[in-house]
Amino acid sequence: MKAVVLAAGLGRRLKLDLPKPLLKVAGKEILYRNLCILSDLGVKEFVVVASSEEIGNFLTKHGFRHKVIWNNSPEKGNGYSLYLAENHIDGDFILIMGDHVYERAFIERAVRGKGLIGDRIAKFININEATKVVCANGWVVKVGKGLEKYDYIDTGLFILTPEIFRHAKAVIAEKDRAELSEIIERAKLPVTEVSGFFWMDIDTPEDLRRARREIIRTSVKLGDGLVARAINRRISTRISERIVDHVTPNQITFFTFLLGILSVFLVLINKPLAGILYQLSSIIDGVDGEIARASMKASELGGWLDSILDRYVDFLFLLALALSIAPRMIVWMIVALAIFGSLMVSYSTERYKAAFSEDIYKLSLMKLLVGKRDERIFLIMLFCLFGWIFELFVLLAVITNLRVILTMGIVWRYKKINSYL
Amino acid sequence: MKAVVLAAGLGRRLKLDLPKPLLKVAGKEILYRNLCILSDLGVKEFVVVASSEEIGNFLTKHGFRHKVIWNNSPEKGNGYSLYLAENHIDGDFILIMGDHVYERAFIERAVRGKGLIGDRIAKFININEATKVVCANGWVVKVGKGLEKYDYIDTGLFILTPEIFRHAKAVIAEKDRAELSEIIERAKLPVTEVSGFFWMDIDTPEDLRRARREIIRTSVKLGDGLVARAINRRISTRISERIVDHVTPNQITFFTFLLGILSVFLVLINKPLAGILYQLSSIIDGVDGEIARASMKASELGGWLDSILDRYVDFLFLLALALSIAPRMIVWMIVALAIFGSLMVSYSTERYKAAFSEDIYKLSLMKLLVGKRDERIFLIMLFCLFGWIFELFVLLAVITNLRVILTMGIVWRYKKINSYL
Repeated sequence: MKAVVLAAGLGRRLKLDLPKPLLKVAGKEILYRNLCILSDLGVKEFVVVASSEEIGNFLTKHGFRHKVIWNNSPEKGNGYSLYLAENHIDGDFILIMGDHVYERAFIERAVRGKGLIGDRIAKFININEATKVVCANGWVVKVGKGLEKYDYIDTGLFILTPEIFRHAKAVIAEKDRAELSEIIERAKLPVTEVSGFFWMDIDTPEDLRRARREIIRTSVKLGDGLVARAINRRISTRISERIVDHVTPNQITFFTFLLGILSVFLVLINKPLAGILYQLSSIIDGVDGEIARASMKASELGGWLDSILDRYVDFLFLLALALSIAPRMIVWMIVALAIFGSLMVSYSTERYKAAFSEDIYKLSLMKLLVGKRDERIFLIMLFCLFGWIFELFVLLAVITNLRVILTMGIVWRYKKINSYL
Repeated sequence: MKAVVLAAGLGRRLKLDLPKPLLKVAGKEILYRNLCILSDLGVKEFVVVASSEEIGNFLTKHGFRHKVIWNNSPEKGNGYSLYLAENHIDGDFILIMGDHVYERAFIERAVRGKGLIGDRIAKFININEATKVVCANGWVVKVGKGLEKYDYIDTGLFILTPEIFRHAKAVIAEKDRAELSEIIERAKLPVTEVSGFFWMDIDTPEDLRRARREIIRTSVKLGDGLVARAINRRISTRISERIVDHVTPNQITFFTFLLGILSVFLVLINKPLAGILYQLSSIIDGVDGEIARASMKASELGGWLDSILDRYVDFLFLLALALSIAPRMIVWMIVALAIFGSLMVSYSTERYKAAFSEDIYKLSLMKLLVGKRDERIFLIMLFCLFGWIFELFVLLAVITNLRVILTMGIVWRYKKINSYL
């Protein structure tokens, strides 16, 4: 399927140097967001109607398969832009406004529908300026901004047949300025409802801020706990909003890890303060994922490393606490390290599989590492036979944790190299 | 693509009550094995030439889409059986012998080839009885059992065009008994080499035992450690061979877990003995997976539960050992439980994702459980503020481990119910 993107709008109210579709929302251009999501959903080619060269350069730079159509007369309306795409369309196609931001879940549902995609609620947009749709038995009856009673808000996304161009020509023949809404009304399209998801068009700087906030809200991951929902996310999403345009997810991952380690040392000095810092790091720990997903930079590698570092911080904090109530016992600490390391060998392996959907042992260097369960058990048996229990714990603590660290290095190397290929 | 299965053979030497394709190798019928693997590789319909009603009943019972063709004259040879399939074939097709057992990796490679699939080595079969193939420039020149010099052994698997039926008719017109080898020779097929994998035809009870052994050997999973390769697998595969027809994988998982727990208690009485029993349980721990894969009963659920139980045994064994050198400290034990439980919450979640390729939080009951990282950290902060460190560890030990146990129950329930739907 092809998609036609109307990107010839002028964006007067934003007083921009660049076309509206190239505005960044949460770290990525509106055009990039929509084309990325549509590509993921199987759209193979984009027909982009533009009035600025920057759009063509942008599409080429990001490797989208596209055809740019030059619109010298944007003042003739967006219906005229649609009409210009006619010669490049040979079957059913998606029509999308270049200056609208959509949540991924919205587009996923919309492309399965047909005709005009309508939203009954449209809670994120300014209703006064919205295009309204009256329909009867699921078909468009009337379209316009001034309608007092209406069934749907036009979302700027349509699934059309080439039939639409006949109506476009008729409107262009009659009027100087051809509005898409008039073409849609004459075409009597079917309506598909997709309500409750985030989408909006961008007209003002306030719109931009709002879109950024909502995109970050839709980037919160599955499976949050009670405290995350009640406290952490409310703070972390606000932090993400502020910094999404200025930092990378990996920078936040590293910063959160440092905060965690700092809280571990604080345990030895002031436990209440350490607890607070630990909780603070937990809040900030949400930011890297939010930024990564919102700015479409999420990587399996980043998520995997973040999880491993989180486990280490959790363990070290508990260990520091334990030491504070039983400070003499060095044995104690080594035992805990051994227990933890043994479990971490498994954890890192499984977390890898969950993240990459492949076996970690496909990385050939992994086969060189010792410390797997069967090897550990064999060592345990040997040391039990000789009665060397303390020595056993020292050995286990070293090889298991060394293995996990080496695993991180190996995975990083393979996955980083692959991402350059 | 369709597959023709020649299953009309008489199996005289095995003195059987049932057709050879219905013989069980490592817990599953030969016919089931081959059809399952071919289905996984995209074969949509099976044309099965049989001389016994049991074959048809079997195919229907297992839900394979099939057409059974009755061969009243199996004494006319397997070339005649092939000929009978003609009317049900309309394009390229796979031809496979119903009494041959193949390793999955062999079939995967074979179906990507064309013509006769030849094996240069064929180390698992009796060369004297094998059909040999002489070829020139990649095309069949001569086929027969008595050839002294040859290039390949015929594996009984072919990727053919309907052209083959013309040659089948010619041979049938000339002879009372039409051998497939003669048809193949006349058709001058191309040859695709697939060497080094396990496959064999079953003629004697000794063949059956050998096939069982090799199928179990090919069922050893990726990522074994040094000790597993050197010791454990050599023993576990022999155990699997003996018991594959008599137990389920889950029974072995449970038995291994009990052995592990027993070894934990033994630590308190006799450490050398405990070490040996622990190592023994590690060996037997390989059996459930081998049996599951060899008998095509492998389930994500079984693998997931087995991993969780393994982690508990590992931890409890280390804990028992630790107690034996620092026996006074009850605190100690609770701390270790808390550390372990915290990590297990993450581990069980990730292990789930690795196994099922989906998020554990799609199971709605999971959302009711507390004990996630953000919740734990918040509790830690609170208890730090009040200075209740011991109490914190008690609480953490309870909620994390309880959570993991409940998670196992929830996953078991969902996945068990789904497998009945």
